[in-house]
Amino acid sequence: MPSFIDNGTRFHLDDPTLAPNSAGYLWNRRMMIQMNSRGYAVSQYMDPEPRKYAHPPIIPAPTFMLPEQTYYPNHPGRFFYVRDNDTGTLFSAPYEPVRARLDRFAFEPGLSDIRWLIEKDGVRVELCLVLPVDDVAELWTAKITNMTSAPKKLTFVPFFPVGFSSWMNLGGHFDADLNAVLCTSVTPYQKIEQYFKNQHLKDITFLAASRRPDHFEVGQQAFEGEGGLRAPSALADGGHLRDGEAYYEIPACIMQWDLTIAGGESEDFRFLFGPARDEAEISALKTRYLDGDIEQVRRDYHAYVVEGGRSCLKVQSPDETFNHVVNHWLPRQVFYHGDTNRLTTDPQTRNYLQDALGMLFIRPEAARAVILHAVSQQHVSGKMPDGILLRPDAELKYINQVPHTDHGVWLVITAKAYLDETGDHSILDEMVAWTDDPAPASVREHITRALRFLAAAVDERGLPYIEQGDWCDPMNMVGYKGKGVSGWLAEASSHAMSLWSEVCAAEGDQETAGWLKAEADALVERINRHLWVGDWYGRGITDDGVVFGVPADKEGRIFLNAQSWALLCGAADDDRKARMLKAIDEQLVTPYGVEIQAPSFTAMREDIGRLTQKWPGVAENGSVYNHAAAFYAASLYHVGESDRGFNVLRAMMTNPDREDIAARGQLPLYIPNYYRGAYRQFPRTAGRSSNLFNTGTVAWVYRMVIEQLCGVRGDGKGAVIAPQVPSSWQTLSFTRRLRGATFNVTFSRDDGIAEQVVEIDGQRAEGGRLAGIEAGRIYDVRVKAPR
Amino acid sequence: MPSFIDNGTRFHLDDPTLAPNSAGYLWNRRMMIQMNSRGYAVSQYMDPEPRKYAHPPIIPAPTFMLPEQTYYPNHPGRFFYVRDNDTGTLFSAPYEPVRARLDRFAFEPGLSDIRWLIEKDGVRVELCLVLPVDDVAELWTAKITNMTSAPKKLTFVPFFPVGFSSWMNLGGHFDADLNAVLCTSVTPYQKIEQYFKNQHLKDITFLAASRRPDHFEVGQQAFEGEGGLRAPSALADGGHLRDGEAYYEIPACIMQWDLTIAGGESEDFRFLFGPARDEAEISALKTRYLDGDIEQVRRDYHAYVVEGGRSCLKVQSPDETFNHVVNHWLPRQVFYHGDTNRLTTDPQTRNYLQDALGMLFIRPEAARAVILHAVSQQHVSGKMPDGILLRPDAELKYINQVPHTDHGVWLVITAKAYLDETGDHSILDEMVAWTDDPAPASVREHITRALRFLAAAVDERGLPYIEQGDWCDPMNMVGYKGKGVSGWLAEASSHAMSLWSEVCAAEGDQETAGWLKAEADALVERINRHLWVGDWYGRGITDDGVVFGVPADKEGRIFLNAQSWALLCGAADDDRKARMLKAIDEQLVTPYGVEIQAPSFTAMREDIGRLTQKWPGVAENGSVYNHAAAFYAASLYHVGESDRGFNVLRAMMTNPDREDIAARGQLPLYIPNYYRGAYRQFPRTAGRSSNLFNTGTVAWVYRMVIEQLCGVRGDGKGAVIAPQVPSSWQTLSFTRRLRGATFNVTFSRDDGIAEQVVEIDGQRAEGGRLAGIEAGRIYDVRVKAPR
Repeated sequence: MPSFIDNGTRFHLDDPTLAPNSAGYLWNRRMMIQMNSRGYAVSQYMDPEPRKYAHPPIIPAPTFMLPEQTYYPNHPGRFFYVRDNDTGTLFSAPYEPVRARLDRFAFEPGLSDIRWLIEKDGVRVELCLVLPVDDVAELWTAKITNMTSAPKKLTFVPFFPVGFSSWMNLGGHFDADLNAVLCTSVTPYQKIEQYFKNQHLKDITFLAASRRPDHFEVGQQAFEGEGGLRAPSALADGGHLRDGEAYYEIPACIMQWDLTIAGGESEDFRFLFGPARDEAEISALKTRYLDGDIEQVRRDYHAYVVEGGRSCLKVQSPDETFNHVVNHWLPRQVFYHGDTNRLTTDPQTRNYLQDALGMLFIRPEAARAVILHAVSQQHVSGKMPDGILLRPDAELKYINQVPHTDHGVWLVITAKAYLDETGDHSILDEMVAWTDDPAPASVREHITRALRFLAAAVDERGLPYIEQGDWCDPMNMVGYKGKGVSGWLAEASSHAMSLWSEVCAAEGDQETAGWLKAEADALVERINRHLWVGDWYGRGITDDGVVFGVPADKEGRIFLNAQSWALLCGAADDDRKARMLKAIDEQLVTPYGVEIQAPSFTAMREDIGRLTQKWPGVAENGSVYNHAAAFYAASLYHVGESDRGFNVLRAMMTNPDREDIAARGQLPLYIPNYYRGAYRQFPRTAGRSSNLFNTGTVAWVYRMVIEQLCGVRGDGKGAVIAPQVPSSWQTLSFTRRLRGATFNVTFSRDDGIAEQVVEIDGQRAEGGRLAGIEAGRIYDVRVKAPR
Repeated sequence: MPSFIDNGTRFHLDDPTLAPNSAGYLWNRRMMIQMNSRGYAVSQYMDPEPRKYAHPPIIPAPTFMLPEQTYYPNHPGRFFYVRDNDTGTLFSAPYEPVRARLDRFAFEPGLSDIRWLIEKDGVRVELCLVLPVDDVAELWTAKITNMTSAPKKLTFVPFFPVGFSSWMNLGGHFDADLNAVLCTSVTPYQKIEQYFKNQHLKDITFLAASRRPDHFEVGQQAFEGEGGLRAPSALADGGHLRDGEAYYEIPACIMQWDLTIAGGESEDFRFLFGPARDEAEISALKTRYLDGDIEQVRRDYHAYVVEGGRSCLKVQSPDETFNHVVNHWLPRQVFYHGDTNRLTTDPQTRNYLQDALGMLFIRPEAARAVILHAVSQQHVSGKMPDGILLRPDAELKYINQVPHTDHGVWLVITAKAYLDETGDHSILDEMVAWTDDPAPASVREHITRALRFLAAAVDERGLPYIEQGDWCDPMNMVGYKGKGVSGWLAEASSHAMSLWSEVCAAEGDQETAGWLKAEADALVERINRHLWVGDWYGRGITDDGVVFGVPADKEGRIFLNAQSWALLCGAADDDRKARMLKAIDEQLVTPYGVEIQAPSFTAMREDIGRLTQKWPGVAENGSVYNHAAAFYAASLYHVGESDRGFNVLRAMMTNPDREDIAARGQLPLYIPNYYRGAYRQFPRTAGRSSNLFNTGTVAWVYRMVIEQLCGVRGDGKGAVIAPQVPSSWQTLSFTRRLRGATFNVTFSRDDGIAEQVVEIDGQRAEGGRLAGIEAGRIYDVRVKAPR
């Protein structure tokens, strides 16, 4: 049975066919690898832009990581053939390419490694992958055990395809000095400027081994022959690799060991795989990782991921899967985002800031740096750019060249959350220049000006222009003619203004606070006047004045974000709230979560845009887009609908049972950016995971668990403790660190309780309020609630 | 045994493993398909830029057609599974993906179709592909025959994978009305401008059938299952396709027929495969090609390729392969180039003009139009652009954005050849504007000015600047700093000036003729002064004043072009010629032809450029680059070295025997742009064909066969008949059409003859000269030569 093991720090999948595309991932600040249970891999590193070191058999177009990535036999992967030389049988670990029926299969991704255990005909293969903390390389160990009592003659052949990297120059050879296969190439280019830009590129991909191979092969076709990857001709009939090179032939790293293993004995191997610029770099990496203490490498990497990414919360709830996800996998995913910026040099501004929102609970000082860096690229007008450049040589690329209007909102939300979590108001006095004006201004002024810009970029109704998209990138044709407005952005701006008004008021700037409150209220009034249609809020108004996302629409009838943020900004009164929630339940809620809109578009709508051209149920076109679902959950907690809120959050977490894993096609190790929606239109495919772990979702979910479900958040100089625990939970205990203090909280329900009460160190705290937080102190908190 | 059949109009390959990448190709003016013997396909069409309608499982980077294209199991192809429902055995025609051992295999590409005959266990499958003349579609026929006397129950499953076309939207379904599988997609884009540009794209790929299938499948993964393409799970255990759709899943066109075929009987099928914009287009194509008279489609297409591309020469030599190539396959390849412009909207100027050079012998009026169109994009300075735009919306792309200096040369060579072939001097009086000056000038002036521009773009030595390349695109760093010069271009300019000087003189413009002759001579003097080093000519002089391609160079020691064009321009005296030829024989001649330079570079040389970064022995870095070899052959004929010249030409033609086909990896149906070189450095891979049939080679080879080997060319108002027949040939007869006349020529060697004599209609013609050509007349020509 698939299950969490090792106290939730590792998962166990026992069947390579249950969810063929399921995977775990590892990363460091320079690279990332998504390792599929069957042996396929998607990996990339920064050089300085994202690059790959193992390729398919053709040169792929540069794309971001693709949702629902499909694997196929020649997809890059890491494979280990084992041939029994007495019986002639062949299998491969972990499963591909041979796909032999295995006696035992275990794919066990952990927090800081990915391992497999494979058994077949008395042979056990144990594989494990870890990454170094600071280098681009994969460190593999393989242990081959003879499980029988008689000796076994085995041939062991690691096969790491490298693929088609270049039409200009590619090949490969075995380097005896390095004891490594080197696949060499020259990155293709035509313009001379590019030659100079390419100088630093790591155009070698190598596989170095801890033991000298008996044979090797570098030409993939020579290896495959007519037998193909499933039964390579080079391994047929007891044959051995021909010690061949690849001369402008697709190279692969293939080595052969002929082993005689006594009964019960094992043989151990280590491999290092990755890109390098030259032989010297390979040699240095070998010294560090192949010749060095591998246990130290493991410990260091574990420390990076687990200690480095240690968070402020440990929970113990009746929901074991929830506990494992929240205690281990969710903060891990949040840390991945915050520490790597998704391995891009120009993160979208909204991603950059929301990833920092999650990082608040792990390394608040990193979030502080993000806020300062983001405003340093703000325009003096207050406008936030579409992307934030992380290096001097970075450029705004792809979607960051399309004008979006929402970026200021995330600055406010992240800054407000930063102040709550840290109490560090000194950030507001930091002086930072503008991208187009060297005269510095305080961060306080930067943030206020972002809101002034938003307040000014409105049409004659006072609703904000959407230009070529707001939070929703592909909603690019609502306002491209310069007139269309975003209902969601009106709500989000109002919410942000309210948040910032609170900060200004607390700081004593009543004038700005008052103006912001008045603007926020005015937006609410306009939203209710122009966008409430039937039983819910429309999503926006097109260039031609058409309100969309309304009951009259056959497709895209109801958009989740327009409802969630109406709750967050306070636009919806109780009656409207009830009607909205009913509509959402009826039209958007599915067994796999809440859809972003419905019905999914099945044809282009030219006054909405590119989103309507996406496949129905995929991404913004009606999937369970978890980022939007997280906003919805946040809005539910905001209005005290905690059971609904929890259900929305919980639906994002795959359950560790065969049915849910098979339906979603992923393991519960991360929250993906979406599960396939269009549940009412295309039920066969609904629920499928994108298997993309890059998503703004996780910051919101983690924050909600901490600040809403567990309910411990900073507030001014003190804290508020106000758990919103699912009504089905009778108990909950957790430890929350906040501003240097530790809160040990136990929650329980009792029949004799009328309303929730909070006791801090035995003292009843009215409204759960703690006036001041003492750093270093441990608070004992008991929360009692009605059953 | 592999062999030509049907009088050389078809080839027969009997083994799918002999040359796994060997292929035939078909085209029309809108599309091209290179069909591999095993079933893989590379195809593209114009929309208006080149696009594909069948994709690999990932989105490939846009590249030109790749040399030595590798195939792999999930590569696009056209496959037909056959399952014997009594025995359960499965095979696929033509060979992939099952790779079953076949009883009989015949891959038989013809001039205007590609067909296979496969036999396995009493079942025969006959496949044939033709194209329509004017539409983008593949028309397939399949005939399944029960070769036994008892009835057979067979399941027949065509499988046409469509692959991953779009991350935005892809899927597919069976359309019962159209009786077709439609794989739908939306071409990915992000910027709004692109939406409007994409409106016309044919985003559907369809497979329509002549018969209603019993079952179908559109999801490739559902078809493959764990069995993979070699043993699809959907076909295992007597199962049938599930009639499934693809919902954002990689689609494929898969249909199933369950057949009971009586002994000796057959079943026939027709299929139409291709791209379409909408259902109406599919319906129209079906009406035309599935419901229509297929024999008429075949005849029309045959007429397009064979009648439309009918050439001016038929030869009968003792060399049968030579005859087949020259009579059928070479003019076919020449016509392909000239009629399609290689399916690009911005051909490189040198390609555009040289392709027209070949077209002279097929449709001279097309060559005339090319010359006029090319000079209409010439700058008033005389400079020719890097590419010629064929449509108003075309743009100079890729390599055409890099400045090259040779384009004027090809204008002169093609124009001179046009005048020789047609005698049509009226073209010189055509008035054409410049790209940057609306005031028209005569074509005569255009051409002269191209030479004036070349004559002026020289350094202080009077040698022409190379900028970022001459004929050799990747020789991009010899002169990028603005100082380096091209030795080859000096020779080519001198040659072009001499040619044009002749034309000017014949036209009575002695002043221009004299100036040109003086310039040509001056260049020769400079070439000999600056570039002759040791025993051959250097290729150029770098920005730093270093002559390269000289004996002191360890790599790139001798460049073929620098020698060939020294012969063409008359720079080399007899002594130098002899020393050059010896050097070429020793350093460049291989069993597969003459290398473009040697030794191949194994490391970057920064004062030469990108060519040194290509894999050694590939393309410009030391392959048998047939275009350069053709120049060499031309120079040999030019100086009367006809046996050497013939050997160079003949080495380009693959022999129809197992050894040569296996070594080169191609069939003798076209001359590829290169065979792998670096013969002395990497002998294992030497001789391998690029399998690219786009090459400027063929125009030159065809012209040489006609004008030099057969030796009949126009000259002023008359003709010259001066065959340069290989000394090993005792006889040769051919028919040559020229300016409306027909020359029936028989050549023979005789012991009693001292020197070659030509008799026209029984009259001895001094120097083989015919003063005037009478259109419509048939000349009987006898040439007698010494044995």
